Amino acid sequence: MKVSEIGEFGLIEILAKMVEKSRDVKSPVWKNTVAGIGDDAAAWKNTSRITLASTDCLVQDVHFKLGQTAWSDLGWKALSVNLSDIAAVGGRAQYALVTLGLPADTGVEDITNMYEGMIDLGEIYGVAIAGGDTTSSKTVFISLTVTGSAGKRLLRRSGARPGDLIAVTGYLGTAAAGLRLISNGAASTTEDAPLRQAFLRPLPRLGEGAIIISVGGHAAIDISDGLVADLGHICRASQVGARIEVERIPLHPALLQFFPAQALDMALGGGEDYELLFTASAATIDKVQAKTSLPVSVIGEITADVTGQVQVLGSNGRPYVFDKAGWDHFGKI
Amino acid sequence: MKVSEIGEFGLIEILAKMVEKSRDVKSPVWKNTVAGIGDDAAAWKNTSRITLASTDCLVQDVHFKLGQTAWSDLGWKALSVNLSDIAAVGGRAQYALVTLGLPADTGVEDITNMYEGMIDLGEIYGVAIAGGDTTSSKTVFISLTVTGSAGKRLLRRSGARPGDLIAVTGYLGTAAAGLRLISNGAASTTEDAPLRQAFLRPLPRLGEGAIIISVGGHAAIDISDGLVADLGHICRASQVGARIEVERIPLHPALLQFFPAQALDMALGGGEDYELLFTASAATIDKVQAKTSLPVSVIGEITADVTGQVQVLGSNGRPYVFDKAGWDHFGKI
Repeated sequence: MKVSEIGEFGLIEILAKMVEKSRDVKSPVWKNTVAGIGDDAAAWKNTSRITLASTDCLVQDVHFKLGQTAWSDLGWKALSVNLSDIAAVGGRAQYALVTLGLPADTGVEDITNMYEGMIDLGEIYGVAIAGGDTTSSKTVFISLTVTGSAGKRLLRRSGARPGDLIAVTGYLGTAAAGLRLISNGAASTTEDAPLRQAFLRPLPRLGEGAIIISVGGHAAIDISDGLVADLGHICRASQVGARIEVERIPLHPALLQFFPAQALDMALGGGEDYELLFTASAATIDKVQAKTSLPVSVIGEITADVTGQVQVLGSNGRPYVFDKAGWDHFGKI
Repeated sequence: MKVSEIGEFGLIEILAKMVEKSRDVKSPVWKNTVAGIGDDAAAWKNTSRITLASTDCLVQDVHFKLGQTAWSDLGWKALSVNLSDIAAVGGRAQYALVTLGLPADTGVEDITNMYEGMIDLGEIYGVAIAGGDTTSSKTVFISLTVTGSAGKRLLRRSGARPGDLIAVTGYLGTAAAGLRLISNGAASTTEDAPLRQAFLRPLPRLGEGAIIISVGGHAAIDISDGLVADLGHICRASQVGARIEVERIPLHPALLQFFPAQALDMALGGGEDYELLFTASAATIDKVQAKTSLPVSVIGEITADVTGQVQVLGSNGRPYVFDKAGWDHFGKI
């Protein structure tokens, strides 16, 4: 069987089971594990705090095209998607290790530009680039690992409970719209800048992640695969269901202006928004909103449906069928 | 300028300087950094202990060819080269994060076999696979990050002092010989098994690294780029020189049997042996040898030559000129 037949998530499930089977209950390393394969960041106890580590990779012609993306944006984004994973568990990011696969004819200035993008973002969030590895490769890839720390508790995918409300930070679908504009080769304008920026230079929601955990949020995930796909991850990990209403999904005015017909599908399935989706009580969500100037929108609720299904309801109350169920790297979409 | 013109080490130097310039002296993250770019593992203080992280990547057609290497061996080696970096600083390994770049038509069984190899090695050294990332890619790559911990002190590349003796664990050149046999497509025999194993399934020297630091070794590095290249890294980091004698380099009987003419050049420049090179007093080296059944060989000494040069002396006492100065991924060899 080929990996394209079972998809990325099918593959991860098989590998997670293999690793789980090998778990050595007597080993201190295994005993101290808090979160492993299947959460946004790996986590283990180290003295009184929890140590976090997360890894994410950008590959040429899969996640970006060289002519379409500036190297500095690439560096920014490679770090940002990793910081987003630390944000999703409510942690603080600390150190980054950078592995670069580069064709031998890559320009040195391209790579220093890429590092500038990474350093710029690292300075905003207090993250130090601590090491890495470089190797030749036919195509470019940038694989980062970011470490971090958390207090005694984490936001987990498995923490959602029936009756929780489902909320998201910021706007959804903007990154997908930005990618569409960039792929179309359209000249950039002031009006479409928020869409392009959302795709090229997403801001990790580290502040919001810290707020959500501090006021008692139950579960969280960053929206990288797409709203419905990522909410599905929460539902399966928590053994619950979810119901969301398309009318409550926050859409940026620029998204509605440039893609009025596709806006909703981009928001539901587009992915790469790197906003946080979290579940909590109404009172907790109010507390989160009080502490951030980013919009926080309630889009639905967690149900007792143990099948892990996500119901998407249209404005007529009927199931809404949308275009794309998220981002699967091996093409089972 | 292209990266092939300045080479892997030239590129790393430029990036290390950029990152150093961005260092924020007031930030706790930067203040706690113990070792950054240019050491085997990144290291920072976390309460009373030091946290370690190291990343290393294997790329198809650069580090391995798919038809020539079993997937289980690939998994073993991908983890082993990372554990070797932790060994080189005298640390203990704890958790691994695995990033896989895979063509969509990769067999699922191939990947589970690879994980078996990784799990097998992880069980020997008490390392837990804690997470990772999978993505599609035209060619296979396996990028691992391993975390670990150390006491108050690390073995650093910068710790060598004039007058130190230079010692290595195990045998050198065996991995290069193993690769040659595998590339030639020769059928494997009992006699050449130590050579193939050295290339396919190197054992990280975590035990020896812990011994070297506990008895007071000064500097260490794992031999991945080749003896002379890696000793050169030590010399530049410590601002010293080195003199080694080819007659003292430990060569495995199988290496001498299969490659009598090339054995020495393979040992000096072949790379991928993943043995430890360390510098220490004679008394300390004796203590290391007393605690491990692996041969520990003194091959030369550290000099006060500040140019960072490595002198290789032949059996006649004259400079020995050898074939290959180590492994540079961008072809400046």
